[in-house]
Amino acid sequence: MQIQDKLTMPIGVFDSGVGGLTVAREIMRQLPCENVVYFGDTARVPYGSKSKETIIRFSKQIIRFLKTKHVKAIVIACNTASALALDTVQTETDVPVIGVIVPGARAAVNETENKKIGVVGTEATIRSETYTKIIKSQLPDASVIGKPCPLFVPLVEEGFAKHSITEQVIDIYLSDMKNTDIDTMILGCTHYPLLRSKIMAYLGERVHIVNPAYETAMDLKDILNREGIANESGHPGTYEFYVSDAAEKFTKFASSILPYDASSTQCVNIEEY
Amino acid sequence: MQIQDKLTMPIGVFDSGVGGLTVAREIMRQLPCENVVYFGDTARVPYGSKSKETIIRFSKQIIRFLKTKHVKAIVIACNTASALALDTVQTETDVPVIGVIVPGARAAVNETENKKIGVVGTEATIRSETYTKIIKSQLPDASVIGKPCPLFVPLVEEGFAKHSITEQVIDIYLSDMKNTDIDTMILGCTHYPLLRSKIMAYLGERVHIVNPAYETAMDLKDILNREGIANESGHPGTYEFYVSDAAEKFTKFASSILPYDASSTQCVNIEEY
Repeated sequence: MQIQDKLTMPIGVFDSGVGGLTVAREIMRQLPCENVVYFGDTARVPYGSKSKETIIRFSKQIIRFLKTKHVKAIVIACNTASALALDTVQTETDVPVIGVIVPGARAAVNETENKKIGVVGTEATIRSETYTKIIKSQLPDASVIGKPCPLFVPLVEEGFAKHSITEQVIDIYLSDMKNTDIDTMILGCTHYPLLRSKIMAYLGERVHIVNPAYETAMDLKDILNREGIANESGHPGTYEFYVSDAAEKFTKFASSILPYDASSTQCVNIEEY
Repeated sequence: MQIQDKLTMPIGVFDSGVGGLTVAREIMRQLPCENVVYFGDTARVPYGSKSKETIIRFSKQIIRFLKTKHVKAIVIACNTASALALDTVQTETDVPVIGVIVPGARAAVNETENKKIGVVGTEATIRSETYTKIIKSQLPDASVIGKPCPLFVPLVEEGFAKHSITEQVIDIYLSDMKNTDIDTMILGCTHYPLLRSKIMAYLGERVHIVNPAYETAMDLKDILNREGIANESGHPGTYEFYVSDAAEKFTKFASSILPYDASSTQCVNIEEY
C-alpha cells in the first residue's frame, strides 16, 4: 500500500458500548483531520463484570472487524478491555493498538504531588490492578488505592447522573477513599466522566480528577506522527459508527455526546468475525 | 428413540444469567425426579436493554446448545427472552418450549379481583407489552399497568437488595403504581423476587405479589404429563450447569440460591452454536 493511502486510512476506536464515545470525541477534537471508525459492542455490554478470557475473545473479534475497515491504528476506548486484553491483542495485530490505561496512568503520575493516587473503575479493571502496575512502573514509590464502583454505569445509563441517589452511592463507594490523603483520582471507566462534577464535589478541591480521554488522544497523535501516518490533509475527517445491537438507541445517545451526526450507525453481527 | 429413554432425558432451562436459577429451583422442588440442564448466558448478560433481533439470535444459539444435551423440553426462565423470542423459537424447535410469561399472566388473572394488574420488568419486557397482551387474551376487560425498573437488576447483583438506596429506587419507580388501585403485581424479571419483601412492604397488603416461577413449574409438569414424558422413576434428578462466562462466579451465586452443588459448572463458547 502507498504511504499516501495509509494517511487517509481511518482510526479504529472501540468500546463495550457508548462510553467510548467520550474518547472518540477527544480524538475528533485533537486530530480533526483523521477519519474514525467507531464500534460499540452493545449486544454484549457491559464488559466490567466479565472474565479476562471472554474480554480477550470479544476484543479479537472487534479488531478483526475493524481490520476489514482498513484501519491504520486502533484505540481501545474501554478501560476494562484495555486492562484485560491490550497486551494480548497488541502482539497479534499488525497496526498500532493503544488503550486508555497507559495514558491515564501517566497523566496521574504527572499530576500527583504526594504520590498517592486513587483509581475508580469496573470490578474487572480494578481486580486486574493494571492501573497500579503501570503507575508503579513509572513512579515506583507511588501508593495506589483502587475501588470498583459497579453501580456507576447503570446509574448513568438510566439517567440518574444528577440524582441524589447517585450522591449516596458515591458516598458508599468513596467514603474510605475520601478519608485517605490521595491528591489525584483517575476516572478509570469511560462512563465516569459523566459523574465528574458530583465526584469532584464529594472529594473536594484537594483531589485532582484525571480523565484518560485527553491523554489517550495525545498518545495517538504521537504514534501517528512517529509512524509518519498522520493525516495532514487539512480536510475534516469523516466518521462511521457500528454497533452489535440496537443502532437506533446508540444513535440517540451518540447525538447527545457528539457534535456530529451518527444517524447512519449500522448494526453488524460481531460474532461472525 | 424409545419412550423409556425420553422419560430420563433432561429439561433444558436457560436465562441471561443467574436469575433463572429461581425458576430452576422451583422446577427442582415441584418435579424432583426430573434431570435438569441449566444454561446461563453470563457472557452476554443482561438481555433487558437489548433488541428483539439480538435476543432471538441468542435464544436460538442456546436452544441449539441445549439440543446437544438431548433435552426433552425447554423452559425459557428469562422474562425478556420469553417476551421477545418465545413465539419465534417455538415454531422452530421440535420439543416443547415454554416461557415464564404465560404462566405468570395466568397466575395474575386468577389472583386479581378488580382486574387491575401491575407488571414490573426490564425495559425490553415492558416495551414488548407481552404480559399485557396475554393477560387481555384471558381477561379482556383487565387493565394492565407496566413499569420498567432497570436499576433493580444491578442493585440485586451488587448486593444492595437490603439497602435503603433500594427502597428509594423502589419509591421512584413504583410511586405512580402505588397511587393506582391495582390489586395484583407481577414480578416480571427473575431477579425481582429477591426484592419481594421490600416491594410488598412498599405497596402494602392490598396488592398481591405474583412470582411466575411456581406457575411455570406447574405448567411444565402439565406438559410432561400430557406428552407422556414425565420422569416418574422415583430417583432424585441430576443437575448440570453451563455458562458462557466466569463459571466460578456463577457457582458462588448458584450455591446461595440452590440447595444443590453447582461446583461442576462448565463454561461453553455459546457463539459457536
